[in-house]
Amino acid sequence: MDRPAYIWPKGKTSALCFSVDVDAEAPYLWQHRAGLPDRLGQLEQRRFGPREGLWRILDMLDRVGIAGSFYVPSVVAELHPEILPALVARGHEVGLHGHLHELAGDCPQDAFEAALDQSLSVFQAQVGLRPAGFRSPAWEMTPAMLAALAARGIGYDSSLMGWDHPYDIDGMTEIPVQWQIDDAIYFKFFGGGADKWPPAQAAQIGQGWRDEFDAGRAYGQLFMITVHPWISGRAQRVAMLEQLLRHATAQPDVWVAPAAQIAAWHQTANAGRFVARSGLDTLAAHLPKGTPA
Amino acid sequence: MDRPAYIWPKGKTSALCFSVDVDAEAPYLWQHRAGLPDRLGQLEQRRFGPREGLWRILDMLDRVGIAGSFYVPSVVAELHPEILPALVARGHEVGLHGHLHELAGDCPQDAFEAALDQSLSVFQAQVGLRPAGFRSPAWEMTPAMLAALAARGIGYDSSLMGWDHPYDIDGMTEIPVQWQIDDAIYFKFFGGGADKWPPAQAAQIGQGWRDEFDAGRAYGQLFMITVHPWISGRAQRVAMLEQLLRHATAQPDVWVAPAAQIAAWHQTANAGRFVARSGLDTLAAHLPKGTPA
Amino acid sequence: MDRPAYIWPKGKTSALCFSVDVDAEAPYLWQHRAGLPDRLGQLEQRRFGPREGLWRILDMLDRVGIAGSFYVPSVVAELHPEILPALVARGHEVGLHGHLHELAGDCPQDAFEAALDQSLSVFQAQVGLRPAGFRSPAWEMTPAMLAALAARGIGYDSSLMGWDHPYDIDGMTEIPVQWQIDDAIYFKFFGGGADKWPPAQAAQIGQGWRDEFDAGRAYGQLFMITVHPWISGRAQRVAMLEQLLRHATAQPDVWVAPAAQIAAWHQTANAGRFVARSGLDTLAAHLPKGTPA
Amino acid sequence: MDRPAYIWPKGKTSALCFSVDVDAEAPYLWQHRAGLPDRLGQLEQRRFGPREGLWRILDMLDRVGIAGSFYVPSVVAELHPEILPALVARGHEVGLHGHLHELAGDCPQDAFEAALDQSLSVFQAQVGLRPAGFRSPAWEMTPAMLAALAARGIGYDSSLMGWDHPYDIDGMTEIPVQWQIDDAIYFKFFGGGADKWPPAQAAQIGQGWRDEFDAGRAYGQLFMITVHPWISGRAQRVAMLEQLLRHATAQPDVWVAPAAQIAAWHQTANAGRFVARSGLDTLAAHLPKGTPA
Repeated sequence: MDRPAYIWPKGKTSALCFSVDVDAEAPYLWQHRAGLPDRLGQLEQRRFGPREGLWRILDMLDRVGIAGSFYVPSVVAELHPEILPALVARGHEVGLHGHLHELAGDCPQDAFEAALDQSLSVFQAQVGLRPAGFRSPAWEMTPAMLAALAARGIGYDSSLMGWDHPYDIDGMTEIPVQWQIDDAIYFKFFGGGADKWPPAQAAQIGQGWRDEFDAGRAYGQLFMITVHPWISGRAQRVAMLEQLLRHATAQPDVWVAPAAQIAAWHQTANAGRFVARSGLDTLAAHLPKGTPA
Repeated sequence: MDRPAYIWPKGKTSALCFSVDVDAEAPYLWQHRAGLPDRLGQLEQRRFGPREGLWRILDMLDRVGIAGSFYVPSVVAELHPEILPALVARGHEVGLHGHLHELAGDCPQDAFEAALDQSLSVFQAQVGLRPAGFRSPAWEMTPAMLAALAARGIGYDSSLMGWDHPYDIDGMTEIPVQWQIDDAIYFKFFGGGADKWPPAQAAQIGQGWRDEFDAGRAYGQLFMITVHPWISGRAQRVAMLEQLLRHATAQPDVWVAPAAQIAAWHQTANAGRFVARSGLDTLAAHLPKGTPA
Repeated sequence: MDRPAYIWPKGKTSALCFSVDVDAEAPYLWQHRAGLPDRLGQLEQRRFGPREGLWRILDMLDRVGIAGSFYVPSVVAELHPEILPALVARGHEVGLHGHLHELAGDCPQDAFEAALDQSLSVFQAQVGLRPAGFRSPAWEMTPAMLAALAARGIGYDSSLMGWDHPYDIDGMTEIPVQWQIDDAIYFKFFGGGADKWPPAQAAQIGQGWRDEFDAGRAYGQLFMITVHPWISGRAQRVAMLEQLLRHATAQPDVWVAPAAQIAAWHQTANAGRFVARSGLDTLAAHLPKGTPA
Repeated sequence: MDRPAYIWPKGKTSALCFSVDVDAEAPYLWQHRAGLPDRLGQLEQRRFGPREGLWRILDMLDRVGIAGSFYVPSVVAELHPEILPALVARGHEVGLHGHLHELAGDCPQDAFEAALDQSLSVFQAQVGLRPAGFRSPAWEMTPAMLAALAARGIGYDSSLMGWDHPYDIDGMTEIPVQWQIDDAIYFKFFGGGADKWPPAQAAQIGQGWRDEFDAGRAYGQLFMITVHPWISGRAQRVAMLEQLLRHATAQPDVWVAPAAQIAAWHQTANAGRFVARSGLDTLAAHLPKGTPA
């Protein structure tokens, strides 16, 4: 059976986007929004991002010569007002990532929308632009949240995993992510007994990421890697990422671009080709009878 | 001490079965059968299976030139009615896997039997056949569930691990599985804090699987590998599986066959040779006196 | 500073003991001693040990040409009366391991002693001997349990980790174990959501075990490896163990012996040289004042 | 953008400190300060440190020819009065680590200060000196705890991760640590069901540590490795550490020094160059209005 192939720009058969979630203190503030503990451990660990990690990653991207997509919670932009202007000045895309890194599962729709509007204001005030895209802090979305993006003219979401190339869901352009190529799940570690596994060694994960990149080219994959400055700004991880990106950028048939460019391309060249619906009603109809709605 | 060796077809000294549990949305529906959450994350991740993963695996099997055994919850067949006909058309075995992927530990006997009958109906309606075998969604069975299979003329179960080649238990043919060569335990990852370990890199697991395959040949093993399209349909995993299967199919003394053929062989050539009983009463008699029955 | 070196037999500078905990159904019976569930999954998985795994390990030891120490819960000896006689006939040491694999943390002293006496009776009845040693099922002991062994003339315990060569604690000979070279912590996996990590690939663990063996020789280590037939009787693990043991037995300065021989040697050549006391009172005196005794 | 580089002594561009947390029984006593269980397993495992592990590490450091920084809970110094004198005699730095290894999260400020004073007394009594530095047992600190160090003239803290070279926080010199290069998170294992992951193989972690060391040199990193004698005194881990340190000490541009020397250097050559504030008030101001203080 011949199945439709994703259409990439002329001469390109797959793509890579280097995305950065600039979380810094935001998830900690969200977690402790009812009151901040009198402790410094995790805070200082997270502050390594805006102090060192972010700039190491930016310098590495300059050496490799690519532009990335940086999703910045607006409280991080407020706490570190040098970040958004620096990202724009260095030629990267900046995107929305909530205000306090609100987790969809704990965040009612009105709070989600309020955070969205607040973050749009901060971006406007600091760099005078309206971001083209949104990434959910926990890679979780609801149909109503997708609709809230559309209502504000936000052009793409980057939070779901229904294909490994761009697609449409409920009319919104989805630039999909993938757990396997996220740094936090392998390297995030806070101590204090809350962690479930120890941080991996970078070289082993980097080899797996390269394997995914290499294998994905046969499927027209968008290799959407996601890193966090306070995590991947550590020395061995920057080195691993540089090695991976040098390998990737050496492939002439791979298109390396920020997510906003990829979304624009998708809307032009693949409109209506890979279409999904939330379909929660259809699924609910298959539950045992008597299930509450 | 000379111990009896399993008898494989002439010229063959061990066997491989490539089995696929086509779960898609079914385990999520089972988990949320009391009411579906208003979220898309895990659903979209699972839908990667019927959209992409399944077809990548089918194409890979065509390249390698082998037929597999696909166990399909019947709700998945209802939601994606193209799946069962395609599997049959491409020469694969299709087997039972519950209706909503019912987990034995949470499923009373009458619900188990109702799901069994419902799934038999769906298979009959969609592809006009009665599957030869059943696989328990959680690799868990009770004596009564084995008896329910026998009562319906289902020829084999593939859920237990008492030998690493086929055997009989309570008179039912058991085509055994093995945790070590299941993809879900290494690669399944949902985020949101519920996971206990991060997804492994495919090459490392693939090397371990090859070691198990190679070492098992000395013991007349049935190498029963189990994969899920939404998990192993990801690029690097398909590539790893293809490499493993190319190695396995290059061994002339290994019989590669669907489980139904292996079960039929077992009933002919090894009847009465490897026999187990549930034996729960015998065990209970060894518990401290006063233990409630 | 010159520190005392452990004295091994002439020409030997370190030692290896291959120990096997023949657990089979026993831990499952202990866990469910209040009533056996109506399920077969874990039981069949454990029965792989007495059906296949144990005999694969025995054959492997014959190929390598060494004798091991097998600790058998006496309920396993009752359920599988062929095991103890076969172990003795093939030249291996058999040792105590509780009756129902009683875990020290859940087992009052009187139940511990009753299980000890029951298991001594079973060994006497089945193979007409009184084992020289005891291994705690969970590698946990109390001072009173050590004393209960001594009161019965049991010559050594093999459950603690205070040195990595034999020593004395409260007057009992301790043949120490080590988590790092136990198979269960890496390979045991039951499914059903209770596991905390997936089974490792044998080759990676085998390399680490070889590193420990190699490095331990400089310290006069007793390399006390521990395996379980239902776990390490799987194909790739037997192959890994054989490779490790072939490497170890090729070193002329390593003494390979069952634990009973090592304990006898210890009592002769190292009497009074490495002596520990439980010392719980001494420690309690360092707790903050007002701590209840 | 040119960012300031950390200034190391002439000819040196990065640094390494080998730090040892001599915990032994102390964390167990802290955990069970309400009453000691009648068990020996974990205690004997921990006692391997003062019996064997510590001396193996000291001999290894002599072979490599470097001095380390040893942080000793004062209850360990009381239980094993040979330790502090031996460390001083062999040329190593000794530093504070609480009395009972008090965990900051469970320890009120007055108890923290009492333990600090108690440990200062023990060090004075046993080796007649006042340590230059403190390391938090759980790598957690509060602003008030930093102030308590300063009030006692303790010259540096080594517990936080805000940079990967020395810095100042609230006026205190911070010699930062890093989870990735701590042994406990990879190797600590107690059994009994409380562990969340099995112990890693030393060679794999050692390779990752070498990668971090190598990559960190480009950033002027202080490679602050942390080990525990009862953990890393095991044979394969000592061997791995020796290999790592031989590699590190072969680099002429890396300064290997105890933390006290590094802190003194920092206060001279980098005063006011890398300055952080706790800033909890600033952060709290960004929480949603109505958050309790």
